[in-house]
Amino acid sequence: MNEVTNLLKSHRSIRKFTSEPVSDELINEIILCGQAAATSSNIQATTVIRVRDSGKREKLAELAGGQGYVHRAGAFLVFCADLHRSQIACEMQSGSFSEGMTEHFMIATVDVALMAQNCVVAAESLGLGICYIGGIRNNPQAVSELLDLPDQVYPLFGLCLGYPDQDPDVKPRLPLSVVLKEDSYQDAGDVAGIKIYDEQIRSYYKSRTGGKKDSCWSEEMKALVGKESRPHMREFLRKRGFLMK
Amino acid sequence: MNEVTNLLKSHRSIRKFTSEPVSDELINEIILCGQAAATSSNIQATTVIRVRDSGKREKLAELAGGQGYVHRAGAFLVFCADLHRSQIACEMQSGSFSEGMTEHFMIATVDVALMAQNCVVAAESLGLGICYIGGIRNNPQAVSELLDLPDQVYPLFGLCLGYPDQDPDVKPRLPLSVVLKEDSYQDAGDVAGIKIYDEQIRSYYKSRTGGKKDSCWSEEMKALVGKESRPHMREFLRKRGFLMK
Repeated sequence: MNEVTNLLKSHRSIRKFTSEPVSDELINEIILCGQAAATSSNIQATTVIRVRDSGKREKLAELAGGQGYVHRAGAFLVFCADLHRSQIACEMQSGSFSEGMTEHFMIATVDVALMAQNCVVAAESLGLGICYIGGIRNNPQAVSELLDLPDQVYPLFGLCLGYPDQDPDVKPRLPLSVVLKEDSYQDAGDVAGIKIYDEQIRSYYKSRTGGKKDSCWSEEMKALVGKESRPHMREFLRKRGFLMK
Repeated sequence: MNEVTNLLKSHRSIRKFTSEPVSDELINEIILCGQAAATSSNIQATTVIRVRDSGKREKLAELAGGQGYVHRAGAFLVFCADLHRSQIACEMQSGSFSEGMTEHFMIATVDVALMAQNCVVAAESLGLGICYIGGIRNNPQAVSELLDLPDQVYPLFGLCLGYPDQDPDVKPRLPLSVVLKEDSYQDAGDVAGIKIYDEQIRSYYKSRTGGKKDSCWSEEMKALVGKESRPHMREFLRKRGFLMK
């Protein structure tokens, strides 16, 4: 429809990067674009840690489940949800921080994601490729210690950035009719829509892997939500001061 | 730096819209752009409910704390975190859905925010203005009932879209040095940065309101995190099947 919508619709994760570094100037511009995203009650609850230290990068790649591109990408950022800063601000005004509210956790988490997605759009517009790294939540305690995160801060995801050294296809998504509903939640057509998508994504995987990957969306969902996922998460968050009430 | 980064950096919330409606074609394009955002393990955990029904819009405006633009904007979308769909898919494969995992809640919540922010960028590139409506979490149970949301689905925020009938200034953000750190979380300079920002935002509010609003960021943070916020949230989410373990 226009250049921006074309850019958005051409997103695919990049996991192989050239050795060209990402300049400080670009990173700063990307973060400024991220900061411009909407933020709930102007809380600005995101802190980004750019990890340059090679030893830390290697350790993070390992903690994320052996994702080598965390070490090798032109830049690696850890996006943290941060209520520590607003706690400090509150205390600067002689206020007393209300710890552990689920709502504050949600505000902070959403803030991080909105900012990160703006960073991603900016990065891709500047010719970079990106890959979100949810794997840093495999061991969020170790990540927190590695980055000296105080209480009221937790690492939500990482972001690899760099100049792409691959050109994968865009992954098809669920039919629009399944995700966009009108006036109320009606799921009568969803099973049919999922079945259509199942075959579409099966073809996509097959053609992308030369027939090796033979899977579909509902099978992926069984593997994802049909079992416990990162069961340490609740206890970790509570220990950092989140989700207590 | 380029047209996209200029677009991102020019964001401001719009709360006053012309009466021009937003076409279905635009809404569909915006949602397609949203769907193209990264999604954790391809879960695509977002459902968007476009509310057209005037009675429902009026009710939502009221539930959001009397925000009339929820009723009057050219379009209003409710962004829901949806694990119900992946539950169905899991069960299509004879899997048994693992209910209430905190990690699944986080994946779904982040998915919604990434998709929404892509929608926002697309909308703004198409000449629309937007405003996120966190106020639908004032009474999420009533919103859920109004939109017939099943269990495993919750309304995260609303989004007003429309053609702007105002032209507010861009709101200044915290200094880059406060939100972007290197290799570890060091907050030694943060209080100084917050103080600079406090004065900057105080001037912004004053000039925008003709001197009426005399407040700063740390005062706002005291009002926000210095007290309980939406204390019903944890219980509501548990009743919908989230955050149980």
